[in-house]
Amino acid sequence: MQIDITLSAADTTPDRVAHRSVAVIDVFRATSVMVTALEHGIRKIIPVTTVEEAEALRASYLSQGERVITGGERNAVKIAGFDRDNSPYSYMDDRALEGKTFIMSTTNGTRAVNASRTAAAIYIAAMLNYRAVCSRIIEDNRDVTLVCSGRENRFTLEDALCAGMMADELLQRTGNAELSDIAWSLRDLYLLYRNDMKRGLSRSRHYNDLLRLGFAGDIDYCLQCGVTDKVPVVDERFQITG
Amino acid sequence: MQIDITLSAADTTPDRVAHRSVAVIDVFRATSVMVTALEHGIRKIIPVTTVEEAEALRASYLSQGERVITGGERNAVKIAGFDRDNSPYSYMDDRALEGKTFIMSTTNGTRAVNASRTAAAIYIAAMLNYRAVCSRIIEDNRDVTLVCSGRENRFTLEDALCAGMMADELLQRTGNAELSDIAWSLRDLYLLYRNDMKRGLSRSRHYNDLLRLGFAGDIDYCLQCGVTDKVPVVDERFQITG
Repeated sequence: MQIDITLSAADTTPDRVAHRSVAVIDVFRATSVMVTALEHGIRKIIPVTTVEEAEALRASYLSQGERVITGGERNAVKIAGFDRDNSPYSYMDDRALEGKTFIMSTTNGTRAVNASRTAAAIYIAAMLNYRAVCSRIIEDNRDVTLVCSGRENRFTLEDALCAGMMADELLQRTGNAELSDIAWSLRDLYLLYRNDMKRGLSRSRHYNDLLRLGFAGDIDYCLQCGVTDKVPVVDERFQITG
Repeated sequence: MQIDITLSAADTTPDRVAHRSVAVIDVFRATSVMVTALEHGIRKIIPVTTVEEAEALRASYLSQGERVITGGERNAVKIAGFDRDNSPYSYMDDRALEGKTFIMSTTNGTRAVNASRTAAAIYIAAMLNYRAVCSRIIEDNRDVTLVCSGRENRFTLEDALCAGMMADELLQRTGNAELSDIAWSLRDLYLLYRNDMKRGLSRSRHYNDLLRLGFAGDIDYCLQCGVTDKVPVVDERFQITG
């Protein structure tokens, strides 16, 4: 099994993911939110790039009598006119969410999913469900690329650490994986920080920005490792279920 | 002083380098060769992308009575029809090199120099001269981006470690640099491997490929850290002197 890692949507060219099992990672907070929402009753998630697409899709679903919510963020805050923001804590009310379709728009995560379209299979990964996603990848028995969403097409540390953690898990469990240079490096970086993730992340710009905006609770939630076996799958229409 | 690092020519978009002091790194072996050639008498280096450009330029220089050599590699080996290959050991004969222009074509290094064209200043860096390049960068007193040439537009470990080493040097000497996420990560990776660079590099694909091709001597040479104060400068016509 070959293991590779891309660092942003821009880095995720078709050749890096074609025919592979792919896990898309956006720890703060898109993929953490996706996993949480599906755990709490959401039936299907449709990631879209623009606010306009989201509004149009919502109108279309409502006209067909479907139950739908809109959520996400721009620059970490709730989009005007959307139902919910991008905090995992906004997706834990099962009774209100049960069976609904969640139309989601975020700054980075949706681009990374789109960039992965040549993959054989696409899973949604966060620290929350990393072990379960690794199990699915091992079952697939294909080469794998872990796709970090990054931030504005640049490397962001929390996604890189999640990818490194998954590379380490896959290496340990298969015993014979072949890692690219970046996969080895991020795995070693993860091992360096594993006993104090927050200290390692204290240099991360995104981490610090979220703290400044008052999202310490979201951070703590998203840094929980392997607490759910939910493995969201992206289908050929780019809709996510799990 | 802000410190950023790009991981390949493809990663080096104009916004990452504009108005900054830039150091282009290609440890195995383009920038190591450039530093060595200038140390041993070469007057000027002209990096070109294609073999055809190199041949045309050579013909033009010769017709003007200029003394010129062609050198470089494709897939690590000497290009048919060129004077020399891409081993630093091929550029140590001062008497034959003195005053000549060196037309150079390599798979990755020349692309990274081109990608840096919006920079305020471009220097050529390798492990050989990393400390001297850092001194020049500190004198410039601008924000800096360390540009790794990478390999086929992907992260390669030896360039990343050189960049991490330079980020650490700049951080220590300025005492107040602001590092991007990738700069922090590569600096930490360098600190992890610094006492045994070869063990760290043993996972690098490029390192292993070069060993397999018989270039162990070149590797040892290129891993020498801070042994020369030669700082090659790329001018506005993309010609390199120092």
